[in-house]
Amino acid sequence: MAGHQATPPGTPKVTEILTDWIIDIRGEDIPEHVRAAGLRTFVNWVGCAVGGASHETVDAALKGLMEFSGPATSTVMGRSERLDALHAALLNGISSHVLDYDDTHLKTIIHPAGPVASAILALAEKMPVSGYDFLTAMIVGVEVECRIGNCVYPDHYDRGWHITGTAGVFGAAAAAGKLLGLSKQQMRWAFGLAGTQSSGFREMFGTMTKSFHPGRAAQNGLASALLAKAGFDSSERVLEAPRGFACVMSDKQDWDEIVGELGSRWEAELNSYKPFACGIVIHPSIDGCIQIRDEIGDRVNDIESVHLIVHPLVLELTGKREPKTGLEGKFSVFHSAACALLRGDGAPTAFTDEVVNLPEIVTLRDNISATASADCHSASVDIEIRFKDGSTMQKHIERALGSRDVPLTDDQINRKFSDQSTLVIGDEKTAALLDVAWRTPTLSDVGEVARVSAVDQPESVTAA
Amino acid sequence: MAGHQATPPGTPKVTEILTDWIIDIRGEDIPEHVRAAGLRTFVNWVGCAVGGASHETVDAALKGLMEFSGPATSTVMGRSERLDALHAALLNGISSHVLDYDDTHLKTIIHPAGPVASAILALAEKMPVSGYDFLTAMIVGVEVECRIGNCVYPDHYDRGWHITGTAGVFGAAAAAGKLLGLSKQQMRWAFGLAGTQSSGFREMFGTMTKSFHPGRAAQNGLASALLAKAGFDSSERVLEAPRGFACVMSDKQDWDEIVGELGSRWEAELNSYKPFACGIVIHPSIDGCIQIRDEIGDRVNDIESVHLIVHPLVLELTGKREPKTGLEGKFSVFHSAACALLRGDGAPTAFTDEVVNLPEIVTLRDNISATASADCHSASVDIEIRFKDGSTMQKHIERALGSRDVPLTDDQINRKFSDQSTLVIGDEKTAALLDVAWRTPTLSDVGEVARVSAVDQPESVTAA
Repeated sequence: MAGHQATPPGTPKVTEILTDWIIDIRGEDIPEHVRAAGLRTFVNWVGCAVGGASHETVDAALKGLMEFSGPATSTVMGRSERLDALHAALLNGISSHVLDYDDTHLKTIIHPAGPVASAILALAEKMPVSGYDFLTAMIVGVEVECRIGNCVYPDHYDRGWHITGTAGVFGAAAAAGKLLGLSKQQMRWAFGLAGTQSSGFREMFGTMTKSFHPGRAAQNGLASALLAKAGFDSSERVLEAPRGFACVMSDKQDWDEIVGELGSRWEAELNSYKPFACGIVIHPSIDGCIQIRDEIGDRVNDIESVHLIVHPLVLELTGKREPKTGLEGKFSVFHSAACALLRGDGAPTAFTDEVVNLPEIVTLRDNISATASADCHSASVDIEIRFKDGSTMQKHIERALGSRDVPLTDDQINRKFSDQSTLVIGDEKTAALLDVAWRTPTLSDVGEVARVSAVDQPESVTAA
Repeated sequence: MAGHQATPPGTPKVTEILTDWIIDIRGEDIPEHVRAAGLRTFVNWVGCAVGGASHETVDAALKGLMEFSGPATSTVMGRSERLDALHAALLNGISSHVLDYDDTHLKTIIHPAGPVASAILALAEKMPVSGYDFLTAMIVGVEVECRIGNCVYPDHYDRGWHITGTAGVFGAAAAAGKLLGLSKQQMRWAFGLAGTQSSGFREMFGTMTKSFHPGRAAQNGLASALLAKAGFDSSERVLEAPRGFACVMSDKQDWDEIVGELGSRWEAELNSYKPFACGIVIHPSIDGCIQIRDEIGDRVNDIESVHLIVHPLVLELTGKREPKTGLEGKFSVFHSAACALLRGDGAPTAFTDEVVNLPEIVTLRDNISATASADCHSASVDIEIRFKDGSTMQKHIERALGSRDVPLTDDQINRKFSDQSTLVIGDEKTAALLDVAWRTPTLSDVGEVARVSAVDQPESVTAA
């Protein structure tokens, strides 16, 4: 039978080893510095979920699906609506990614928190969970999705898969399954169910459907754990089977990335936080352009042309020459550099429809060129400025703000959180939310974080 | 930007052409013989959905997910539970496939009705639809998924994708979008959303998760249409984009299979109906063994050994030597042939845990061998019997019952329907359901078919 083809000799029992580890690991087995990194991941996620909550993408998702919601146990972060846990997981996964401002596992470009935190915070409002256990499950989920991503990256991504969705669904199933107390066999089934829903094309970048991916991964991963707990069975070797995840969706499989050094090497502590509200690959250019603006002040108005020497992925992912909308602007290194030079801005305010179409931005953007260089590190950029008087200047960024070498401080994470959240839920709620989010490790009921984010006023969303 | 890579020169605008056709075609544009084939497809689907309704797979899905259901607008076929339309689509897609007894598009091994009929019958209970319009949408949905399957088959299937799920989600979106009155742009978005959820591994064959695939395809296709109608945007070229469906999930793309002769060549009329409750590839062997039993009577007890010469897919898909459960029995040509010889049975009753483990079945099964022959047509088989007295007989099946050349008559469809349905909802309800199903073309509200299938007694399913 098709499903039971033999794996090649020497293939480890990847699914069994990983899922057994998920079940067996206890919170105290996770080193303190990894737990601390996990808390930063969660705080950053809360800010992003609230920051995206008023986006039209979230409005559209609610308009289309809200009438199908079951019992309203769970908060849509930063809004007044409450939904069943599965739909809340979807909505929060969308809102936390819609501004392209969430966390990044730099090895794989996975945005880890979206699928995982969205799934289990929605679940935790239905079935109270302590902050400590929540962080344990979240860290395990993040670890799982990043390891699975490492196994197939880069071939999987190059083929066209949006890895945040495809690997994220496993992370969501792992975290939800751990909180639901699955048996080891049920966890293998949950992985089978999650894997067989692994999906999401990079073709969707630049549309609302990109942020649908982490949302659906959260929802589907949670559903997989719920079904497995109810006895819905599945393959017990979805990761390594010849017709399972890694072989069907990638031409590269490195099993050791999944099962090697479990519990001692932690991908979860490699998570990073974007200082700018767009794809990570543009960050060196924005960082450099803001530094140039800080150095030259009003002379930014005398710039004639700009040339960027960038990592090849920059043009592949964000080479859009003529963005028309804020969303398209996130996929344009040219717009991003122009906005950083003229306004010093890489926050969500830099990626609005209005700013993308400002005449002075468009004029400078059209005078920015870029060359891909295989020698350029993904966290680096070289910027050459030519002024109208013929003079020039150069700027080299060795490692951009937000990279592994220049991580955001906790204060910078707080500022980023407040910059986003204040616009959606106001100063007072933002301060309370930031406070409770950092107190997660000692909360007896982590659902409090979700509830503090909620606003009272009904939004003007109606059913379709 | 990644999503906007150029398609190779000469690639037609496949998504736009197909979705425009979906919107433009009217019921009266579909030839009468195609509409008649569509009605047979629907009647057969209703019987299968009711036939599978009491299966433990359906129980487990309800146990895991029922507490998340929204307003209970829609029937779970053949049961007492009612769910929101999205969950009903999932459940009915599961039950209609769980006995492996549903319809088959033989070119691609797609089971077309599951994803499509499950999606739109659940929708039609929420938003009344005439039987005529329902059949139009269903035929269009079936046409769409089979054409998309043809485009990528066989490479896509060989890679490990369960094509009923991966292509089915498009069929569900097409049919639901047509009933929801989407604009042409919204239908392109619905395809983007559907395509980016296309998923399902063949690794899941032999587990409950196989039948999850058409169910989730139905639910996700319906959700895609609902989201698109609410303004949730997406790629408008998911089928042909370099990082879209056909290029990411297959190494073969034949665009003409999707856009050629639209409205004149009808894949929907090529649908076939299984006489036996297992994968189509075993049907020639079962048909031949039942014919042998009819010819030799009690001499079946004198058989020493059996040798089958079969199409290569038979051993690839159903080569399980030692099935332990009824479900595994469906993936064993050896069990199937033994049961056909000793009991004349290829119905769901042949694939129970009990029958699979009967000593006389196991003994004969262990004396059945098979050889794959590339010269053997997929609807053919050669059977060689050796009796204990040393004598032999041979049987050649040129085309099996249920194949394109030997289709089931309407009477045979009715008998198959009743054989399944009576066990679940009894004689009286079965007669009423069969009657109303055939009257679909003249029903003012097709939801009546679903409601007639429902039983009053609450099932003993409780929330997880």
